[in-house]
Amino acid sequence: MAAIPETMTAIVIDGKGGPEVLQAHTLPVPKPGPGQILVKVAAAGVNRPDVQQRLGAYPPPASHSPLPGLEIAGEVVAAGAQVTRWQAGEMVCALVNGGGYAEYCIAEDVQALPIPANTSLVEAGGLPETCFTVWNNVFERGGLKAGAWFLVHGGTSGIGTTAIQIAKALGAKVMTTAGSDDKCQACIALGADVAVNYKTDDFVKIAKEATGGKGIDVTLDMVGGPYTERNIVAAAEDGRIVQIATLGGAEATINLARLMVKRVTLTGSTLRPRSREVKARFAKALEETVWPLIASGKVKVIMDSTFPLAQAADAHRRMETSQHIGKIVLTV
Amino acid sequence: MAAIPETMTAIVIDGKGGPEVLQAHTLPVPKPGPGQILVKVAAAGVNRPDVQQRLGAYPPPASHSPLPGLEIAGEVVAAGAQVTRWQAGEMVCALVNGGGYAEYCIAEDVQALPIPANTSLVEAGGLPETCFTVWNNVFERGGLKAGAWFLVHGGTSGIGTTAIQIAKALGAKVMTTAGSDDKCQACIALGADVAVNYKTDDFVKIAKEATGGKGIDVTLDMVGGPYTERNIVAAAEDGRIVQIATLGGAEATINLARLMVKRVTLTGSTLRPRSREVKARFAKALEETVWPLIASGKVKVIMDSTFPLAQAADAHRRMETSQHIGKIVLTV
Repeated sequence: MAAIPETMTAIVIDGKGGPEVLQAHTLPVPKPGPGQILVKVAAAGVNRPDVQQRLGAYPPPASHSPLPGLEIAGEVVAAGAQVTRWQAGEMVCALVNGGGYAEYCIAEDVQALPIPANTSLVEAGGLPETCFTVWNNVFERGGLKAGAWFLVHGGTSGIGTTAIQIAKALGAKVMTTAGSDDKCQACIALGADVAVNYKTDDFVKIAKEATGGKGIDVTLDMVGGPYTERNIVAAAEDGRIVQIATLGGAEATINLARLMVKRVTLTGSTLRPRSREVKARFAKALEETVWPLIASGKVKVIMDSTFPLAQAADAHRRMETSQHIGKIVLTV
Repeated sequence: MAAIPETMTAIVIDGKGGPEVLQAHTLPVPKPGPGQILVKVAAAGVNRPDVQQRLGAYPPPASHSPLPGLEIAGEVVAAGAQVTRWQAGEMVCALVNGGGYAEYCIAEDVQALPIPANTSLVEAGGLPETCFTVWNNVFERGGLKAGAWFLVHGGTSGIGTTAIQIAKALGAKVMTTAGSDDKCQACIALGADVAVNYKTDDFVKIAKEATGGKGIDVTLDMVGGPYTERNIVAAAEDGRIVQIATLGGAEATINLARLMVKRVTLTGSTLRPRSREVKARFAKALEETVWPLIASGKVKVIMDSTFPLAQAADAHRRMETSQHIGKIVLTV
């Protein structure tokens, strides 16, 4: 193992605005505090919240790094006090509190997981953010069970491809929406039972048909705006709708009488501000429930593309086209 | 015990419209089927859904009686097949599937409960509907726990007076809203920690102050419309808002980003269409948890007024003034 250098290349959000504000700077390599590890980054996933942060619309919590990047994979090179699980030389992936777009990154020890079998380091760099988000929102908050109908919008996004596969592997019936027939085909290939091209079809109508009139039990939505009331119309009795982003607008007008009569639950969450303890709980559940599905090949990281760290701006441009299918990952 | 007559006086909704459409008719006394009891009604509670039904806005489920009246107290005079718990001569109160405004009424055996100690028959006639509604929505659906902050709007309504007392007796901190200073005083006398006159004060601001900035854990709302977004603003992290009516309008515009950031849950339910099995579950929980609170005097039926059965229209007029504090009950 090489010595840890004093400085590193890291991507900084220089101002706010378009992808061009992502600039490579030379910064000191951070030092792990108690309960933290230092990871030599091999791959860093790119996520929608990074784009929102770059635009100035999603400021990081005060206690987090202001640098972009919420997930990494790489080699543990140092461990702070009180870290017992990880040792230098081990390979991990981790949900991090910012700073993933860099040669070195701090991770909370409890937010790191082993690299699952069947998974490259590059793929592992795109695992944590979507897995933590899907687990928390679909299974804990949404309570999805085997046999129930699950709808995820944006089926070819990182969240979508992960959600389709995990839900299917755990026995749910899966419906999804995507913006082209090709994307719908990709979703079916991942295991979705029904994929709706939202540009040409009405997902509410198709949800009713697919479920024999019963409706959707759990919906994972990152659109919001006009989708929210449509999600309620598509919901089954006692259905749950979990909001994780509002790409279609934060304001939604809903019919409360419809919500009451079907006993629909509308809720949502954001991952980033959750405490270390809560993220540790998600990590434990993932390692027990989802990591074996990845190791056995039932759930795969769907890769769209990789970009070298220095081309983070191009990675953001790719995400903003919304043409990607699966994860966009920076390689270091 | 007198013989059961062939006919009885019952209130019929003759058309739809104002209180005057409530007309006394002579109808056959119904016969209990399997799992049902016939109750000689001593008292029948008047509820908002009865008013909505009279206006044509809340049609009863197809399998229910079209006659008004959702709760009664009185004497069991006959039991159908498979009824083991109740015998003729016993006094009960019951949540009924319509037909409560009458001299005799059918009740599902599992929806009947004993008259708690410390409770008159007239008071007992006003117990079931509010107790079933509060239990289901505040404790099961809303998950209110001791030590948490509870907000109920309409604190002097039948629901409000019941919710304040049960929540307080089970250890919650209680805030409520009402439309006058006198009504607020009545709520404080019932045990509310904070009562807000919504005509002169902002419940959101006062909720933040009362909870030290933390917000409300569980809100029971029958207003909806513009209150919904205000309930979200007033909510604590992981707060639950349970909608049981929409007296202020069924359409609500909400901010999904706020809901996500605080992980608020917005849900609701209606009681009437729930199955016999579900209502049986609520009845069992009430008998175990709330009936002892009534028997020990910790929870009382707050009576606004009584009207003879034949004056059901006047009882509805009273409810529609919204000047009442507590239950309006018909006596037979």
